[in-house]
Order: sequence, then structure tokens, then C-alpha cells
Amino acid sequence: MIICRTKRELKDALHKLRVQQPDRKVGFVPTMGFLHEGHASLIRQSVQECDTTVLSIFVNPLQFGPNEDFDRYPRDEQRDLALAQASGADFVFMPSVEEMYPSKMLTRVTVDVVTDRLCGASRPGHFDGVGAVVSKLFHIVQPQRAYFGMKDAQQVAVIQRMTMDLDFPIEIVPCPIVREPDGLALSSRNVYLSAEERTQAVVLSQSLAEAAALGGQVGITVSELQEQVRRKIGQSPIADIDYVELLAFPNLTPLDPNQSLADTEGELLLALAVKFGRTRLIDNRILRFAEVKAYV
Amino acid sequence: MIICRTKRELKDALHKLRVQQPDRKVGFVPTMGFLHEGHASLIRQSVQECDTTVLSIFVNPLQFGPNEDFDRYPRDEQRDLALAQASGADFVFMPSVEEMYPSKMLTRVTVDVVTDRLCGASRPGHFDGVGAVVSKLFHIVQPQRAYFGMKDAQQVAVIQRMTMDLDFPIEIVPCPIVREPDGLALSSRNVYLSAEERTQAVVLSQSLAEAAALGGQVGITVSELQEQVRRKIGQSPIADIDYVELLAFPNLTPLDPNQSLADTEGELLLALAVKFGRTRLIDNRILRFAEVKAYV
Repeated sequence: MIICRTKRELKDALHKLRVQQPDRKVGFVPTMGFLHEGHASLIRQSVQECDTTVLSIFVNPLQFGPNEDFDRYPRDEQRDLALAQASGADFVFMPSVEEMYPSKMLTRVTVDVVTDRLCGASRPGHFDGVGAVVSKLFHIVQPQRAYFGMKDAQQVAVIQRMTMDLDFPIEIVPCPIVREPDGLALSSRNVYLSAEERTQAVVLSQSLAEAAALGGQVGITVSELQEQVRRKIGQSPIADIDYVELLAFPNLTPLDPNQSLADTEGELLLALAVKFGRTRLIDNRILRFAEVKAYV
Repeated sequence: MIICRTKRELKDALHKLRVQQPDRKVGFVPTMGFLHEGHASLIRQSVQECDTTVLSIFVNPLQFGPNEDFDRYPRDEQRDLALAQASGADFVFMPSVEEMYPSKMLTRVTVDVVTDRLCGASRPGHFDGVGAVVSKLFHIVQPQRAYFGMKDAQQVAVIQRMTMDLDFPIEIVPCPIVREPDGLALSSRNVYLSAEERTQAVVLSQSLAEAAALGGQVGITVSELQEQVRRKIGQSPIADIDYVELLAFPNLTPLDPNQSLADTEGELLLALAVKFGRTRLIDNRILRFAEVKAYV
């Protein structure tokens, strides 16, 4: 496994490989590090489907708001490298902030509509930062496929839209959420949780599972479903809801709140963001009520 | 010369060539067609420096304002193809609007600061449209080098900044303005000019040449230079000035109007946009007064 800290090193190494084997398929897993089994599953899927797998580890300051956790975002380079190697990554790109942003960024990549709700609304500027860094990384790595976890479902939708709109020659591969045995979605931020918060946080995945089951009930509306989820999460005395929303997927446009779930069409995203103490967790589930079944 | 009307055709053909010769250098000349000797000079330079030259012809609706000339922008496919072939292009990509924009664009590529003045101010949204279409074309063609005429100096500055900020793996090659024998900068829009307008339009290049010479005078200020250029253009009774501006290049930031030219540093852009009848023409000259000499 080769570790590159500069764009030049990585580009030169990948170029050499491509000249040797022009049809080589490069898979890319962009991350902010503090890797867990969710990231490992992305790396393993890339290794299985591609000839070369590039993992990037970069805590991107541009996607953090001024009052967010950029400085205290967890980092553990040695553990990350061990996990990357065990999962089969060929290259790890871990640039410094100065390497990625040598001068002030004047260029913004903005995806409209898809960013209107959820974290796009709660975290202004967040997805501009994601769009910029993912564009940069795509241009540095030039992968054929890029792997993203559905844990950040809105991020997947934003990147898929950006990739389509701008004709990036890259296939975006959304991968399933990996969960703890009790249902909590894996997240680098779970490390922030106190024992009590960790116990209570299980209510998130439970509320999503209940909602998927509720879809079978005749006549329940979009707003009633959202209300049920809020009520379930409210059973945790320390849960502080940021949002609970059911939206059309992948465009993330709102539904008529009075619409019956049975009358909805296609895939829907039930997404939530909830604070436990200082830690904001997100989770989601893709639902399809039209056929009275839930999946993913 | 191969003509491709779909992204798929062009990408497949280029991919085949790259697999045969992985180190092949692809040069790209994006245009809106109605080609003239300025475009031909870009194609010839690419042919000289690269293994394969791709010309694109696409009148991009996204970079025209609602009251601009998208519908009447001149088009002549057969003449364009003849000129492309004569200049040595290997591929001509001429997609339809539907091929380039199969669905509503939700993604915007915006370059700040560099677009604050000149056409960025006169034509709101223009450079967002340029950023979007150039990003798309860069991803479709994946060239090593892309050639742009300095006639659109702000466009060159915007695309260079976008390319640097987003790490596009492409070298932007600015090429000199090609002029008629009397000095008028070549432009597809020159065809709009009446005989009278065509005669008077020569005042643009004359005013720029005078300004370059004026730089040698001791003590003249930025605003005095701009005033001289305006006065010169004003000698044409039908010239209607949109802007005359002297800015730092390539960031296109304003200078202190009371600053002496002799005290300015580095490259400056003297840019102008002037209407003759319904036709808006632009021209510019890169100047360097610090060393009391003008070039390009």
C-alpha cells in the first residue's frame, strides 16, 4: 500500500499504472478518516470491482460551518492506515489542508434543489464544500468508479447529480449503511457519545424501522409518518431533533404532507438528524410505500 | 476528420485511441462555431503541440442572457467543418442542446472575484454558463491541453482559475488575438456589423494601441488612461461604450484610479466592450506599465 501526501506523487504513480495498463479500472473511496467498518465495506467493494483502489483521507475544512466540529473532528492516522491496508487499499492519499487549498478557493460548485432540505438547510455551505472537494479529488484521482456510503444519503444524491450535470466520467456507487448489532449506524462521530447517549441513540434506527413497517398501514399520510418518527425519537429524553423528513429520492423534493403513503411513487428518503448532547447524528432509510414494502 | 454528435460516440472513439497509445496527448479547442481565423489559429496550435485535436462546436444557451443573441447567433455548419478540416482537427464534437443538457442543470460552477467586473458585471450569469459548459466539455473530452483565445481575456482568467481551484488535470493555453489588417479583432459577431459600423469599429483596436503607447508618459494615472480610451472611442459617433476598464491580470481586481501607471505592478488588462448598433464587441490588450512597455 502506497501512501501519498501530495497530489503530484499520487498522480504520477497512477499515471505510471495507467500507461502500463490503459484499461485499468480505478476505484476511489473518499473519506474524512477515523475509519470504521462502514468505510472498510466501501474499500472492500472497490477492491472487488476494480483493479486499483485509492482511499483518500482528508478532513475538508470547507464543508464545516464556523461553529461545527472541524477542529475536534476525530483523527487517528495509524489506525486508519492499518484498516486501509487490511481492507485491501492500494493507495492512500492523505494531503494536508495546504496541499489541497494552496490558495483561496474562488470557485464554488453548487447543486441546487437537492440541497434545499435536510443537512443542506441545517448546515449552510456544507454541500458547496463537499462539491468542491469531491470535484478536486475526482480530478486528482480520475477514477472510473467512486464509492459512497448511503449513511450520507443527501451527499450521495448531491454527488450523483453533480456527476450527471457536469458529465464527470465516473460511476457513483452508493453502498448500504453499516450498523452496530443494536442498529446504530456507524459514524466517526459515534466516538463523541457518552455511554448514556450511546444507549439512547439506538432510537434513531428503531424509529426508521418502525416507519418502514408503518408504511403497510392503510391511509397514513406523509406528515403522520413524520410525526410518528418524531414521537418515537422523543421517547429518548435527551434526543434533540434537528430534522425528520420524508422526501422524494434522489431529487430530495418535498411531498404533499397530506398525501397518503400508499399514493406516493418511487423511492422516498426518510432522513433524520438528531443531537445527543453536543453530538449530531444522522441516519436514514430508503422506503418505497407504493408497493407496501421497504428495502435497503 | 471524425464528426461526433453524441457524447458517447466521442468518448468511445477517444477511449479507443487512448488504449492504443496511453500517453497520447489530446488538445481541445472549445468554440461556439461560425469559425474564423482566430479559431483556426487555436486548432493549428493544438495540432502542432498534441497527438489528437478535438474541436467542439456548441452554441451554449446557458451563457446567454434572456435578452442576448442566442437565437440569432450565427451558425454555418458546413463552412465550420471545412475550416476545421483545413486546420487539421481530428474530431469535431457538435452536440445538440438536448445532448448537452438532457435534464435541467441543477449544478452551478461559479468563479468569484474574477467575474466581478467587465462581462461578469454586464452579463449576469454569463460566466456560470461558461463554467458549466467548459466543465462538461472537459469531462467529455478529457484533454491534456485546452486552447482559448485571449480575445475573451476574462473567460481565459475565469477558466484558468476554475481549472486551478478544482484541480482539472488540464493545461489552459491562452492564445493571441487574431486581427483584421486594420486591427479589428476577429469575432463571429463581426458578421452582424453594417458597412458603417464595421468601418467605425476599428476605433477599438486603435484606442488600445494608443493606450499602450500612453503608458510611456510620466505620471498618467489609471483613471486618466481609462478616460483617454473613452475619449478615443467617443470619436466614433455611433460607438456606445459598455465598459472601459484597466484591471490587474489575471485576478481582474480593480486598481486605485489615482495611481500612476508607472507605479502599477505586473500584468494589467485593459478591456473594453462597446456597442455598434445592436452588436456588442469586446477587445482588450495586456499591458505592463511598470517596465514602460506593452506586449501581446
